[in-house]
Amino acid sequence: MNKIEIIPLGGIGEFGMNCMGIRYGDEMIVVDAGMGFPEETPYGVDISIPNFDFLEQYRSDLTALILTHGHEDHIGALSYILKKFNLPVYGSRFTLALAEKRLDEHRMLDNVLLHRVEANDVIEIGNFKIEFIHASHSLIDCFSLAITTPLGTIIHTGDYKIDDTPVIGKPYDLKTLARYGDQGVLALLGDSTNATVEGRTPSEQAVIPAFEEIFSHAEGRIIVATFSSSLHRLQVIFDVADEYDRKVCVLGRSMQKNVEIAEEQGLLRIPRETLVGLGESRTLNDDEIVYLVTGSQGEPRAALWNMATSSYKGLGIQKGDTVILSARIIPGNERNISRLIGHLYKHGANIIEEKRRLVHVSGHASQEDIKILTETARPKYLIPIHGEYRMLFRHKEYVKNHIPGYNDENVILIENGDLLEIDEWGARIVESNNLEKSFIDEESLAEIEYDVIRERKKLAYGGAISLVVTIDKQSKEIIGEPQISYQGVANIDFSNGFTGEARQAITDAIFAMKKEEIADKKGFQEKLRVHLKRFVQKEIGTKPVIVTTIVEI
Amino acid sequence: MNKIEIIPLGGIGEFGMNCMGIRYGDEMIVVDAGMGFPEETPYGVDISIPNFDFLEQYRSDLTALILTHGHEDHIGALSYILKKFNLPVYGSRFTLALAEKRLDEHRMLDNVLLHRVEANDVIEIGNFKIEFIHASHSLIDCFSLAITTPLGTIIHTGDYKIDDTPVIGKPYDLKTLARYGDQGVLALLGDSTNATVEGRTPSEQAVIPAFEEIFSHAEGRIIVATFSSSLHRLQVIFDVADEYDRKVCVLGRSMQKNVEIAEEQGLLRIPRETLVGLGESRTLNDDEIVYLVTGSQGEPRAALWNMATSSYKGLGIQKGDTVILSARIIPGNERNISRLIGHLYKHGANIIEEKRRLVHVSGHASQEDIKILTETARPKYLIPIHGEYRMLFRHKEYVKNHIPGYNDENVILIENGDLLEIDEWGARIVESNNLEKSFIDEESLAEIEYDVIRERKKLAYGGAISLVVTIDKQSKEIIGEPQISYQGVANIDFSNGFTGEARQAITDAIFAMKKEEIADKKGFQEKLRVHLKRFVQKEIGTKPVIVTTIVEI
Repeated sequence: MNKIEIIPLGGIGEFGMNCMGIRYGDEMIVVDAGMGFPEETPYGVDISIPNFDFLEQYRSDLTALILTHGHEDHIGALSYILKKFNLPVYGSRFTLALAEKRLDEHRMLDNVLLHRVEANDVIEIGNFKIEFIHASHSLIDCFSLAITTPLGTIIHTGDYKIDDTPVIGKPYDLKTLARYGDQGVLALLGDSTNATVEGRTPSEQAVIPAFEEIFSHAEGRIIVATFSSSLHRLQVIFDVADEYDRKVCVLGRSMQKNVEIAEEQGLLRIPRETLVGLGESRTLNDDEIVYLVTGSQGEPRAALWNMATSSYKGLGIQKGDTVILSARIIPGNERNISRLIGHLYKHGANIIEEKRRLVHVSGHASQEDIKILTETARPKYLIPIHGEYRMLFRHKEYVKNHIPGYNDENVILIENGDLLEIDEWGARIVESNNLEKSFIDEESLAEIEYDVIRERKKLAYGGAISLVVTIDKQSKEIIGEPQISYQGVANIDFSNGFTGEARQAITDAIFAMKKEEIADKKGFQEKLRVHLKRFVQKEIGTKPVIVTTIVEI
Repeated sequence: MNKIEIIPLGGIGEFGMNCMGIRYGDEMIVVDAGMGFPEETPYGVDISIPNFDFLEQYRSDLTALILTHGHEDHIGALSYILKKFNLPVYGSRFTLALAEKRLDEHRMLDNVLLHRVEANDVIEIGNFKIEFIHASHSLIDCFSLAITTPLGTIIHTGDYKIDDTPVIGKPYDLKTLARYGDQGVLALLGDSTNATVEGRTPSEQAVIPAFEEIFSHAEGRIIVATFSSSLHRLQVIFDVADEYDRKVCVLGRSMQKNVEIAEEQGLLRIPRETLVGLGESRTLNDDEIVYLVTGSQGEPRAALWNMATSSYKGLGIQKGDTVILSARIIPGNERNISRLIGHLYKHGANIIEEKRRLVHVSGHASQEDIKILTETARPKYLIPIHGEYRMLFRHKEYVKNHIPGYNDENVILIENGDLLEIDEWGARIVESNNLEKSFIDEESLAEIEYDVIRERKKLAYGGAISLVVTIDKQSKEIIGEPQISYQGVANIDFSNGFTGEARQAITDAIFAMKKEEIADKKGFQEKLRVHLKRFVQKEIGTKPVIVTTIVEI
């Protein structure tokens, strides 16, 4: 059994749901439990999670859940995995603070064992020895992991950039990574998000000049929208605001919460008296205030959207406002953002986007950063993770073409549900499982089977007709008229007596049936359904879901 | 009544649904009748159309529908406007050929009067004199319009670029436009699509070097995906294929149809024996064939998607294929395209995207083109049209800042439903109407009221429960048990007897009611609905639509 098994449950070939099982012998740790952002939002699901049921076969092997950092795509499914497997959780102080928020929402805080770790801490869990390596990223307090087993060391980069001058905290700890490189790294699981991007990712400090210039020229209010988790960015905004004598008012629940946690933990240094409440902000002149808001993705419920369309707690966009969109566009949000910008323009705001000014930098390693990291760790096997398939592919291509010694044999593309086995003879995918992701019902927060979504899709596409038919138990004859009601059905001309005709068609169909046909309740029900379906399709050309109920008296 | 009224029905502040009413005295012409691409696709609508009912008040004034060109966002709603107002239609030969296809789908071809016009034709319709000005664009046979009224001339640019070297046909006819400029142009309605883009839009010929280079190096098959309406591009592909001794096989219904029409009309010049059928294509070596396919937007039913995921008529992507995505990404399609590219990579294709190579150019005027056009026509009023609000806004900003004489007074931003009045004293918006767009039901092709979509949204979000209760007409007592069925409802634990409990709750509620309450059928029905709704919400935390039927015996 001298082998390591690597089992990605999510995050490979997709954005979100990062989760990876790593097994040695009969012990398995899980790295991250992230949520995804499905396209099925019209069907009442805004969150997807990895298929944790797949871990059932390893239940007795599972020993710990290790969190690399606090982004939603890494910790958002925490409650769901812990409901199934009550594992001890390891993470940084800030990561655990965000994790606690999530657990609290599910009232699970009391039942979960959280272990706080710091950079360069080494924990031993059975056969695994894990060192937490300080990583720079758009968030703070992030780790890469050095996971040492008797067979060798696996580096899991988590999300990272090689930032030599982060705004908060230290640069990426290449020194510790180099120590592992010198000892020999068996495999490296590396962030691929920006593997399609040439050069180096600019430092988090790179946005400061643009902010300074904008702040020095703006005569009206300044509104900055960014991700509430981009702590370096928040620090820059507080600092530049202070420099140009503006106060900062924080709007939006997640933004307020993150600022609060980060300040409590001493991670965010807010200059004295810079932070003001909404009330105080209103008493200031336009050139004395910065609103730091949520909604950079055009989310229709966020602070910025409300300010742009009507008002957020009485605040609306006005002529002379400078709105800085200090974030990238997450694919899928283009339409909402474009609409948001339209609203902002209409109200006379001056809009500054990242594509025209350097007001945003990525948190992920570009090609040159990947090169630095890979050359420092010099892993025997490189396994691109975290990204859509094209990013993983380009990660592989880049490394193959730019770093000597890497080729098709030792840069290994895996997929969710694969089982990658590494032993002294080599590395190979020995199993591929098609893992259906799970969805979370927005209302009940319960996991939802895909069948339910499939039914919702049908309802959404064509609406529903409810048909109720009453039958005499003895004579098997119809009593009264069939009752028909509609939800979301198109093209019905009620003035033209459509319902009457449909009733008649059903009644006629029942008259034409034999007693035995009617007595077979299931069959009878199905026949009526098909009959009405055909009638509707012929008469009005639509395909609603038809729900038939038989009442027997 | 010496005034011109300009009434945009669609295309302002949105992509798609271009339609504009222009009225002088008691005569009104309509320019274009385009369709839109709504986000409501999950709800069984893939097409939106302008609110043509708004034209009802002008019914007796309407005299003609003028088509600038054959793109779907300009002619896609043709059948729907003509069903309401049977107007004579004017357009170019190629535009009408595409229009006929649409009318034929609705079996309306025999009832519509189509007038073919050519560049520099002048038609007189009542008080309007309309000259068709040859315009260059990604499509062919396109017009700008010079609409002369007793009060002055309105230029409607249609979609255009200033292409000095188009692949097919002549450059934009600036000479004719200059003639109007010299005579004096009252107002210009100008395409804003690329008003955010600096410089000139490259000519349609600009893609040739990239295609030549790719064709000269490719050793395997070449697959080119582009819009079936991008005729210049198709010509380039045929020409370069011929140059490098490859045959071309056209796949995808719309691509085949457009190639057929354009070749029939002599607009597309297909080199001898270059075009081959699917059967013949299979007999050729990989380096002898080009597949020209639909699906550049990652459409899951198009040829390229099928080739990338399984097979299209037996053809699948294979290692060594070069896939050229010769199209821009239309906002909203990012996720599908990314997924498509992932599939292509997985099968070992070499992918060439427009962002890395010049294999696509836009069909719309960039800022410098806008300058050339505006300075040639020198309109008294400039009215940005055709684009999202940010594009219209940037169009205005650009012209104000870069062309002397234009300012906030004579560059006028309008919105759908506005009534812009122009007379000798000036131009002003005198009315603003909120025009709800209409949706077309995908199955029945009928117009759909928004209420139906609203119902579908509710069904999609939470599913539906059907509740049937039988009541004795005389005694007002419940007969038997309530019947409950579910569609798309989440979080029900059937093993836990949820349905039984729900039945009991309803039965108890009925027992608790007075006879009079039950006798009031509507009120009773509503009470049961609310009761079950609350029960469901409390027990399982979801909010399905509840459809209640009362059977009285």
